Amino acid sequence: MRLLVVNVNTTESMTASIGAQAAAVAAPGTEIVPLTPAFGAESVEGNYESYLAAVAVMEAVRTYPGSFDAVIQAGYGEHGREGLQELLDVPVVDITEAAATTAMFLGHRYSVVTTLDRTVPLIEDRLKLAGLLDRCASVRASGMSVLELEQDPQAAVEAIAREAGRAVADDRAEVICLGCGGMAGLTEMVVERTGVPVVDGVASAVTIAESLVRMGLSTSKIRTYAPPRPKAFRAWPPSP
Amino acid sequence: MRLLVVNVNTTESMTASIGAQAAAVAAPGTEIVPLTPAFGAESVEGNYESYLAAVAVMEAVRTYPGSFDAVIQAGYGEHGREGLQELLDVPVVDITEAAATTAMFLGHRYSVVTTLDRTVPLIEDRLKLAGLLDRCASVRASGMSVLELEQDPQAAVEAIAREAGRAVADDRAEVICLGCGGMAGLTEMVVERTGVPVVDGVASAVTIAESLVRMGLSTSKIRTYAPPRPKAFRAWPPSP
Amino acid sequence: MRLLVVNVNTTESMTASIGAQAAAVAAPGTEIVPLTPAFGAESVEGNYESYLAAVAVMEAVRTYPGSFDAVIQAGYGEHGREGLQELLDVPVVDITEAAATTAMFLGHRYSVVTTLDRTVPLIEDRLKLAGLLDRCASVRASGMSVLELEQDPQAAVEAIAREAGRAVADDRAEVICLGCGGMAGLTEMVVERTGVPVVDGVASAVTIAESLVRMGLSTSKIRTYAPPRPKAFRAWPPSP
Amino acid sequence: MRLLVVNVNTTESMTASIGAQAAAVAAPGTEIVPLTPAFGAESVEGNYESYLAAVAVMEAVRTYPGSFDAVIQAGYGEHGREGLQELLDVPVVDITEAAATTAMFLGHRYSVVTTLDRTVPLIEDRLKLAGLLDRCASVRASGMSVLELEQDPQAAVEAIAREAGRAVADDRAEVICLGCGGMAGLTEMVVERTGVPVVDGVASAVTIAESLVRMGLSTSKIRTYAPPRPKAFRAWPPSP
Amino acid sequence: MRLLVVNVNTTESMTASIGAQAAAVAAPGTEIVPLTPAFGAESVEGNYESYLAAVAVMEAVRTYPGSFDAVIQAGYGEHGREGLQELLDVPVVDITEAAATTAMFLGHRYSVVTTLDRTVPLIEDRLKLAGLLDRCASVRASGMSVLELEQDPQAAVEAIAREAGRAVADDRAEVICLGCGGMAGLTEMVVERTGVPVVDGVASAVTIAESLVRMGLSTSKIRTYAPPRPKAFRAWPPSP
Amino acid sequence: MRLLVVNVNTTESMTASIGAQAAAVAAPGTEIVPLTPAFGAESVEGNYESYLAAVAVMEAVRTYPGSFDAVIQAGYGEHGREGLQELLDVPVVDITEAAATTAMFLGHRYSVVTTLDRTVPLIEDRLKLAGLLDRCASVRASGMSVLELEQDPQAAVEAIAREAGRAVADDRAEVICLGCGGMAGLTEMVVERTGVPVVDGVASAVTIAESLVRMGLSTSKIRTYAPPRPKAFRAWPPSP
Repeated sequence: MRLLVVNVNTTESMTASIGAQAAAVAAPGTEIVPLTPAFGAESVEGNYESYLAAVAVMEAVRTYPGSFDAVIQAGYGEHGREGLQELLDVPVVDITEAAATTAMFLGHRYSVVTTLDRTVPLIEDRLKLAGLLDRCASVRASGMSVLELEQDPQAAVEAIAREAGRAVADDRAEVICLGCGGMAGLTEMVVERTGVPVVDGVASAVTIAESLVRMGLSTSKIRTYAPPRPKAFRAWPPSP
Repeated sequence: MRLLVVNVNTTESMTASIGAQAAAVAAPGTEIVPLTPAFGAESVEGNYESYLAAVAVMEAVRTYPGSFDAVIQAGYGEHGREGLQELLDVPVVDITEAAATTAMFLGHRYSVVTTLDRTVPLIEDRLKLAGLLDRCASVRASGMSVLELEQDPQAAVEAIAREAGRAVADDRAEVICLGCGGMAGLTEMVVERTGVPVVDGVASAVTIAESLVRMGLSTSKIRTYAPPRPKAFRAWPPSP
Repeated sequence: MRLLVVNVNTTESMTASIGAQAAAVAAPGTEIVPLTPAFGAESVEGNYESYLAAVAVMEAVRTYPGSFDAVIQAGYGEHGREGLQELLDVPVVDITEAAATTAMFLGHRYSVVTTLDRTVPLIEDRLKLAGLLDRCASVRASGMSVLELEQDPQAAVEAIAREAGRAVADDRAEVICLGCGGMAGLTEMVVERTGVPVVDGVASAVTIAESLVRMGLSTSKIRTYAPPRPKAFRAWPPSP
Repeated sequence: MRLLVVNVNTTESMTASIGAQAAAVAAPGTEIVPLTPAFGAESVEGNYESYLAAVAVMEAVRTYPGSFDAVIQAGYGEHGREGLQELLDVPVVDITEAAATTAMFLGHRYSVVTTLDRTVPLIEDRLKLAGLLDRCASVRASGMSVLELEQDPQAAVEAIAREAGRAVADDRAEVICLGCGGMAGLTEMVVERTGVPVVDGVASAVTIAESLVRMGLSTSKIRTYAPPRPKAFRAWPPSP
Repeated sequence: MRLLVVNVNTTESMTASIGAQAAAVAAPGTEIVPLTPAFGAESVEGNYESYLAAVAVMEAVRTYPGSFDAVIQAGYGEHGREGLQELLDVPVVDITEAAATTAMFLGHRYSVVTTLDRTVPLIEDRLKLAGLLDRCASVRASGMSVLELEQDPQAAVEAIAREAGRAVADDRAEVICLGCGGMAGLTEMVVERTGVPVVDGVASAVTIAESLVRMGLSTSKIRTYAPPRPKAFRAWPPSP
Repeated sequence: MRLLVVNVNTTESMTASIGAQAAAVAAPGTEIVPLTPAFGAESVEGNYESYLAAVAVMEAVRTYPGSFDAVIQAGYGEHGREGLQELLDVPVVDITEAAATTAMFLGHRYSVVTTLDRTVPLIEDRLKLAGLLDRCASVRASGMSVLELEQDPQAAVEAIAREAGRAVADDRAEVICLGCGGMAGLTEMVVERTGVPVVDGVASAVTIAESLVRMGLSTSKIRTYAPPRPKAFRAWPPSP
C-alpha cells in the first residue's frame, strides 16, 4: 500500500527526515511517499502558520497526481485533519492523535513534550477536540524551536529529557509522547534518560494507517466528513 | 472607532447583509467596514471550506489598507479566530463565541440552531474549544443550507422556529442562538414563535468588540497569541 | 439608559467607588445609579455574609423607587444573581461572570486574583455554576481583606501583582481578572507589573448590560427565571 | 443526640410532616427538633424564595436557644447549606446531597423526581456544586407544586410514578430520589410502581447526621467554612 | 443487625484489626462479623492482587454460612464491589466510596492519603467510576506499604501527617481520608497534626451500611446489579 | 510474532471463532494463539462473571508454557486488563479500548452496540476508565445474549442493525463498534444496513498489538503497572 506522509512546513530536509522515520517502521509492502506543501512557513509554531499549513497540506494532497491508500498529517498539534477527511475517501491519521492513542495502551497517563511554550495550548486544544485529554498528565515545552531541534540534537535531548523527567515525577506521566515531527530521532536517548516508553507520532501514525487499510476501514461519510458540497469558489484553487 | 466585520464566504450580498446587521446595532461613532475574502467558497459548510476561509479571512485582514480598532469574524462555527489573534494587536471577536456568552447572561441553558446537519459538529467543536459548551443544551440543524436561507426566508423561519421549539421543549434550552450569519434578519420572527430570547451572533460581536475597545483591552500577547515568529515563507502570501 | 449598580456590602464609600468605576466606563447617555443594601455586612467574605447580601441586594432592587434598564450585581463570587433574574424583567449582570467572559475573549486561559483565601472556593463555585470554569487557570488569593485593600493600596498592588505573576508563570494564565469590586483602581498598576491584560468586573458588567439593553435582550422567562409564583410570605418583606 | 431539622418554608404543617418523617427513621436516643423559619415563603419554588429561605434558616438555627448536635436543611435543591456550615461547629446535612449519596450506594445511576419544572435547574445546580452530578441520570418534574402534593397525594403518586418510570426506562436510572421534602410519605407507593429503590432525602439526612455525630466528625474549619470574621453589620440581625 | 466486614487480604491480624475498628463505631445491636478470604495475597497493593481479592471476597461472602444484613468491602481502591452487588440482595458498601461521601459532607474538597505510590491510580480510578472525583483534591502516597504500616505506627503517622499537610496546604484539601484499612488507628494523631477532620473508611462504611438497612434500602436489581443469569461454569466454584 | 488472544469465557467454540477472526486480519508472520480460561462462566454477562474472568484470564496467561509477544483480552467491557499489564512485560490490548480508539480515527463520534442491556454500564465504565468516553455517542444493547448471537445470526444482524441505525440517527454516531467478541462475523452485514464504518474489537486489537510490538513499545513499568511486589499468597495459585 502507499501512504502519503505530509509535512506541515516547507522545509524539505524535514520532509525527508519524517519520510525516513515513517519508512523505518513501515511494514514490508508499504510505500511511504513524503510530501512537502507548495506554500507556507519553513516551520510551524503557532496558529497563523498552522492554519496556512492546513490549507497547504490539503492542496498538496488534493493535487497529488498518483493514487494512495491513506494520508498521514505529520504535524504535532496542527489544524487541518478534518478538512482532509472531507476531501478523501481513504483514512487520514494525525500524528498528535496517533501518539496519544498509542501512549494510552502503554500507561495510566501520558505527557507530551513539545518545542516552544507557545505551542502547548495548540496541542492541548487538538487533544481536547480529539477527546484524548482525559489521561493526558501534561503538555510540556522544552523551550527549543523546531529549527533548533535540528541544529543541536544534543541540547535537544537534554531539554526534552529534563521536561520528560518532570512529567514523570511531578505530573505522574507514565509514557512520553514526543510532540514534534523533528524529534523522532531522539526517542532512544529519551527512553534511556527517563525509563519510560517514549512514543513517536509519525511511527504510530504509520502503523495505524496501515491497520485501517488492512481492515478495510475508512472515514465515515455520513455527516461531519461528508464530501464538500458542490459550489462555486472564487480564486481557488490558486493557479499554478 | 472602526470595526472590520469579515464575512467567511465570498458572496458579496452576504457581506452586505452582515454589514447592515452590524451597522444596525453599532453605537454612534462606530464605523462598520464589511470585508469579503479574496478567495474561497461562496458559502462555508464544512471543514475544507472553513479552513480555506480561515486563511482567506486572515489575508483579507492582513492586507486591509486602513487602520481599525477590532475585527469580527462573522462565520458561525468556523476556524481561524486564533490566527487572527496572533496577527493583530486589536481585539478579535468570533460570532459563535459572542452569541454563546451573550446567551449565557439570559438563561440557564442555550441552544444553537444552525443550517445543515453537517455543520453541527463544527459548532460543537468550536464551543468546546472556547469552553462554552457546559451550558449549551444542544446544537440543532434546520436542514436549510446557507444559500437556501437567503432565497426562501419564510421557509427558513418555519424550519428554524421548529428546531428552536424542540430545543426549548426537549433539550430545555431557555435562549436560542441563530447559528449562521445569514439568519440575523429572522430574529424577530423566531422570538414570536418561541417566546424565548433569540441572540444574533453578529450583533453580539459588535457590542463586545466595542466594549473591549472602550475598556482599552486587547488580546494577551504573552503566550498563545504572541505574534508569529519571524521566519521564511514559501510562496506566501500569494502574489496579487 | 439607567443602570443600577448594587454593592453587596453596606460600606457606602465602596458603593461610591464602585459607582465611580462604572461611570468611568459607561457610554454617553448611560446613567449609573449606585445602590447600597439596607442591611448586611460591611464587607462580604464568606457564605453567611454572601447569602445575607443576596437577599439585601434583592430587597434594595425590589424597593428601588425609580425605573431602570438593567442591574449589575457588583460582588465577586457572591450569591444572588439568579434571584434578581426571577424578580426583574430587565437584564441582570454579575461581575464575576462579566469578568470571566470578557477575559475569555482576550487569552487562552484566565486567572482570578481575589482577596482572602477563604473566598477562593466561593468564586470557583460561582464560575462552575456559570459554566465558565473550563478556561479558568486558577483562582488565587492575595491574602488581603476587602477593607485592607481600601486602606493600603500600595501593599495591595504588591500582593495582587505577586499572585498575578504566579498565575501567569505557574498556572499558564494569559489574562487576569481582579476578583473584588474594590480592586478596580489597581488595574493599571497590575498591567504594568504583569504584562497581561487585566479585566475589571464592574467595567465589564457595565458594557455587557449596556449591550444587552441596546440589543433589546433580557432574561428568558420560560423556566428557571420565571417570575416567582404568587404565594403567601410570613414576615417578609421586613417592615421599614 | 439532638438534631435540628429545619424546614425551608413557613408552612407549619410541612414542618410537622418533615419532623415526623425524621423521627420515624431516627435511632433510639435521637431527638428530632423540627424548626420553621420565622420569615419567608409558604412554599419554596425558585431562587428568590430559596435565597430568602437560606437566610431565614440560618437565622432560625442561629437563634435557636438550646444545644444541638447536628442540623438538617430539609429543602430539596435549596441555597444555604454553606452558610450554616460557617456558622456552626456541628455537622450540617443537606437533604439533596444526602439523598444523592445514598442513591449512589444503591445503583449505577439515579434520577431525581421533583415538583415543578422550574425547580429542576436549581436541583441540577446544587448537585453540580456538590460534585454529585456524574451519576445523576436526570432530574425530572412531576408538574405538581409543593402545595398540590399535600392536597392530592393520589394524583401526586400518579405523576411521580410516571416520571420515575420514564427515568428508569428512558434515562437508565436505577434508583429514584424523591426531590421534595413533602414527598416522603409517597415512597412506598412509588417503589411498588417502579420496582426500584426510592430514596427519601430527610430520612437519608437523619442517618448521615447521626453517623457523623457518632464518629465525632464535623465541618472542616480550615478554609471555606471557617467562622465568619468579626465585622460590623448594618440592620442585621433583624430586631425581634 | 449483622454486618459482614470483609478484609481483602489474607492476613488474619488485619481482619481482626478491621473488625475491631468496625465494632468500635457500630451501633448497639449491630453485630460485626469480620471475614478473611480463603485465598489471595497477604496484602493487596496492585491490580493483580486486587482482582484476585475481588474474587476471593465474593467467594467468602457467597459461601458464608449464616445470614447477614449488609456487606462491607474493607479494601481501599480495590476491585469487586459491583460483583458483590450482583450476588447479594443486601446492601454492599465499599470503604473507598464510604470515606469519600462522608468527607464530602465535611469540607469543600478532600484528599486521600494512601500507602504506596503505585496504588494511587487504583484509588483515583475507583473514585472516577463512583463519580466521586469532582471534589477530590488529590490522592497522595505516604510511601509506606501496608505491612510497614502495621510494623511501625510511629513512622506511619509521620509519613501520613506529612502528606496530609501537603494536601491541605498545596492541594487545598479540607478533609483527609485515610486510604487503607490498616490506617484507622492513626486517625486521632493525624487530626492533631493537621487540624482538619480525618475520615476512616471502615467506620464510615459501618454507619452507611447500618443506615441503609435501617431505611430498608438495598441494591437496585433492575439492570447493572441484577443477579447473574443462570449459566454453566467450568471448574468453579473451586472445590473445597 | 506470537499473539495470545484470550477468550474471557469458557466456551471453546467461541475461542475458536475469536481466534479465526484474529487470524483473518493478522499480518503475515503473526501467529495467533487462542486461549480459553481454565475456569469461569460459559458466557460473561455481568460483573460477577467478569471479575472471575479477569482472574481466569490472568491465570491462563501466567501459566501459558510458551513465549509470546503480546496479549489480547478478547472480552468487551470486561475487567482485568490492568492486572495483565502488571504481570507481563509484553503489551496488553483490550478489545473495548482497541475498538474505541480505532473508531475515533474514522468519525466524529462512535457508538457501541452490545448484547444485553445489563452489560451497557460495564462497557461505559471501562470506556470511562480508559478516558475514551468523550466521543462515545452511546452504548446500546441489541437485547440478544452472547449465546443467542451464536445460535441465530440472522436475528442478531436484525437486532444489531436496528440499534446501530438508532445510534446513527438519534445519537449522532458516525461509526459503530460491535460490542461483543461473538459479533465479529456480522460486520459486513451491519455495514450494508447502516452505511457507516463498523469496527470489530478483535481485529482492531490484533493490529494494535502488532504495531506496538513492531515499534518496540510495551507497558510502562514505572508506577501503575509495575510488577507485583514479592509477597506471600494463601491458597493461590490453585493447585492443578
